[in-house]
Amino acid sequence: MVTWNNLDTLDAFQNLTKADRVDLAEVMSGENGAERVKNYSIPMAAGLTYNYAAKQVDEKVLAALAKLAEEAQLTEKFQALYNGEVINTGEKRLVLHHMTRGQLGDAVCADGVDKRTFYVEQQTKIAEFANKVHAGEITNAAGEKFTTVVQIGIGGSDLGPRAMYLALENWAKKNNVFRMEARFISNVDPDDAAAVLNSIDVAHSIFVLVSKSGTTLETLTNESFVKDALKNAGLDPSRHMIAVTSETSPLAKSDDYLAAFFMDDYIGGRFSSTSAVGGAVLSLAFGPEVFAQFLEGAAKEDQLSKEEDVLKNPEMLDALIGVYERNVLGYPATTVLPYSQALSRFPAHLQQLDMESNGKSVNRFGDPVDYPTGPVIFGEPGTNGQHSFYQLLHQGTDIVPLQFVGFKNSQIGTDVVIQDSTSQQKLCANVVAQIVAFACGKTDENLNKNFEGGRPSSIIIGDQLTPQALGALLAHFENKIMFQGFVWNINSFDQEGVQLGKVLAKRVLAHDTDGALKAYSDLMNI
Amino acid sequence: MVTWNNLDTLDAFQNLTKADRVDLAEVMSGENGAERVKNYSIPMAAGLTYNYAAKQVDEKVLAALAKLAEEAQLTEKFQALYNGEVINTGEKRLVLHHMTRGQLGDAVCADGVDKRTFYVEQQTKIAEFANKVHAGEITNAAGEKFTTVVQIGIGGSDLGPRAMYLALENWAKKNNVFRMEARFISNVDPDDAAAVLNSIDVAHSIFVLVSKSGTTLETLTNESFVKDALKNAGLDPSRHMIAVTSETSPLAKSDDYLAAFFMDDYIGGRFSSTSAVGGAVLSLAFGPEVFAQFLEGAAKEDQLSKEEDVLKNPEMLDALIGVYERNVLGYPATTVLPYSQALSRFPAHLQQLDMESNGKSVNRFGDPVDYPTGPVIFGEPGTNGQHSFYQLLHQGTDIVPLQFVGFKNSQIGTDVVIQDSTSQQKLCANVVAQIVAFACGKTDENLNKNFEGGRPSSIIIGDQLTPQALGALLAHFENKIMFQGFVWNINSFDQEGVQLGKVLAKRVLAHDTDGALKAYSDLMNI
Repeated sequence: MVTWNNLDTLDAFQNLTKADRVDLAEVMSGENGAERVKNYSIPMAAGLTYNYAAKQVDEKVLAALAKLAEEAQLTEKFQALYNGEVINTGEKRLVLHHMTRGQLGDAVCADGVDKRTFYVEQQTKIAEFANKVHAGEITNAAGEKFTTVVQIGIGGSDLGPRAMYLALENWAKKNNVFRMEARFISNVDPDDAAAVLNSIDVAHSIFVLVSKSGTTLETLTNESFVKDALKNAGLDPSRHMIAVTSETSPLAKSDDYLAAFFMDDYIGGRFSSTSAVGGAVLSLAFGPEVFAQFLEGAAKEDQLSKEEDVLKNPEMLDALIGVYERNVLGYPATTVLPYSQALSRFPAHLQQLDMESNGKSVNRFGDPVDYPTGPVIFGEPGTNGQHSFYQLLHQGTDIVPLQFVGFKNSQIGTDVVIQDSTSQQKLCANVVAQIVAFACGKTDENLNKNFEGGRPSSIIIGDQLTPQALGALLAHFENKIMFQGFVWNINSFDQEGVQLGKVLAKRVLAHDTDGALKAYSDLMNI
Repeated sequence: MVTWNNLDTLDAFQNLTKADRVDLAEVMSGENGAERVKNYSIPMAAGLTYNYAAKQVDEKVLAALAKLAEEAQLTEKFQALYNGEVINTGEKRLVLHHMTRGQLGDAVCADGVDKRTFYVEQQTKIAEFANKVHAGEITNAAGEKFTTVVQIGIGGSDLGPRAMYLALENWAKKNNVFRMEARFISNVDPDDAAAVLNSIDVAHSIFVLVSKSGTTLETLTNESFVKDALKNAGLDPSRHMIAVTSETSPLAKSDDYLAAFFMDDYIGGRFSSTSAVGGAVLSLAFGPEVFAQFLEGAAKEDQLSKEEDVLKNPEMLDALIGVYERNVLGYPATTVLPYSQALSRFPAHLQQLDMESNGKSVNRFGDPVDYPTGPVIFGEPGTNGQHSFYQLLHQGTDIVPLQFVGFKNSQIGTDVVIQDSTSQQKLCANVVAQIVAFACGKTDENLNKNFEGGRPSSIIIGDQLTPQALGALLAHFENKIMFQGFVWNINSFDQEGVQLGKVLAKRVLAHDTDGALKAYSDLMNI
């Protein structure tokens, strides 16, 4: 029987707060540090490894975290989720994004169908469609092949698919599976759509309109923008557009689209990269096989998340350490630092995934919680960040836990030797150096050059950023965030915090304003 | 006489901590809110306005902030800076980036020359060079015009110029002053350089190598990468490269470059967008006149920063309110939210500018400070962020102060009417709605749908994002950060926190490692 309790009511949490603090600089020095690096490591899917040697934990803290996992019933709650319980209590919905990539437990029937079958069907339909586009069987009205795919979506329909596309673009080119360039239109700022449209060949572009509800104002506005451009070019918009939506949305059966592919209410936008939302654009850009490999990596990582032993479950342990850092050590932010230019927008996607899921002040029953929940998440690729905001991370007055990601090999493989090392070796050397610099610091009599150390980090290491590795990486963070939501006893799957702004924006546009709202509207000439 | 004291030793700060807290939701409601919006506003340069109505301040707090400005001698310290005192005490250097765009006070002589004359000379040389490139007088070896400019740099030599380029790219195209596409290579990840090189026509590209010291390892490595590509294409690298560096660097007199333009040690990398570092790439991309307009906007804003009355000085007031939020109200992060897709990388540049400048734990004399200094800075463009991390900003357990930027008009001007409003109107309506939603909230019996409000924000409003407006916007944040450094009594102009990582990375590459450093190196196969 699963019971849902606030974190501060759990004995295991009280116990955790009493565990002696680990002096990270001390435990990471000398041979003890080397031992930690060897031992504090968990294999992940697709050849990845989660290493937490430089986190502020030791055997006692880890034991306390394991007890917390047990008392908070993390495994049981994940089981409940993938077996089809209503985990999204706010919206009274199942949470089934894992099922887009595999079957973790019981068959789940909803809306009168087996949901795994439904998601596989959508993936298959997308694959068939993409193959026909690539084969020139589906073309523009002039019978010419499409060369560019443009996703129109915002939030979950934009950031995830965009980050995944950028992550695999160079890999696909190198491995000769690159099919079409992808572009993205998201912002309601008219300059976003205009700039993308000015830079592409619309006659050879296929547009993917993505909106679960079919009512997202930014997305419908940008669709109209695109349709105008197509018409102005003498083209028939319905020959250039497909839709990804829910079966109940107004877009589902419209003649305005070449085809429609479906997701449903059980997949939150930010968790939709492995559904048709990511599937259409990624299958068109790289071919359905690459998208299938991406799902395979995610599915394998999901399997690891089922593991009850926290020391064998990278997602659960990462989640618990994050809770320890947030609720016991009191650190207010976390930074994500991929040493991979291909992951340039991955931190922005994680920022959405994490902050939209766990930035909540009430528990799943709607009662206020008395402890901090989701932290601020931010990040940029290394080594770039080293020449930028790392100054604060090393010597600022607040401690910001770090999440590194690094790969032994580049994607393209072109490299150059300068001062006896390749660029890739320099990249790897830098991430290693940073972990140790943050953890151990370095004493200097000139305090301006002194590094206190004690700044905790973990790293996920892979051989290369492949579709499988990317899937595993994404699933890692999705599941970590899910487990943290369980620990905090919040509903990670709704987003009521986005509603008030929408309501007020409508009032401004309807000139139904007074007070400050009217005064600001006047300032902006609306 | 300027005296440098820690914040917590100032009577005005102790006084500030005692000021009654402002109930933002209350003061922003009704007609009082409208009055605040009208009154709490300061004109900026280039038609911009800084509005702080939705900040947690009232007449008493503002009076206390004014006293703090006085006791901390903010105006006098800025005067000392632009009149040429050694403000960067750590590196014993003058701080002269303002002088790249104007003369704020006394003539400053250093290295045997008048520095304003020196910076103007560099700007003039760049303008002449750019004009010759555009006129086809400087060409590739085949006598063909260059069509693309590629900046090779990292940190301050990358983020600022890149953000400024993206900010003006569409404006320049619309106003027929777009001269060349610009691209940027920064990361030592070999896939960064390889991907850029694979996507451009190297035979018609001119590369700008930017390194003040001429020794930045990432940048020299990427230079070598580029030279290989040029040679492989049968081209002479010295016909395709210019350098931006200091006169004393190894690059300054090298035959490897078509030309060299100079900055100096008095301009920190993150403050170098208005120097030759931004000047070369922006003048080549948009023409020297556009770069001059950008400098003009910055110069005008600098003049406003000289104003002693904090209520007429947008930079000083923004800085003081930030200190109040950080050191009295205890907020650990700040988010920057431009409602302009053109400013997509502006938050990343501000993240560098702020966190690298003020992420310090010791004062300017090298003694530890007992109060928080620079906060974590992050942000993404609106409306995109609304569908992402705004959930936490509205309903999370921490309060994150917000800095909005918005423009009444788009850059390109193409637009579409949907549901009776243009995209630009929707964009403006959204930023207005968000300010009020954050400040006032909305009570709901279902606490999951409740918005507490009380989340402070300011907004900078402009007519359009022009070169002048961009210059003013940049100078606003540069000077805000400078004033905050003065208040915190830290040196905002060095970055010793980046050194340890460099030293350890060299050790890793030399295989001079033990303990954790060796163990991690083994994991990464170095």
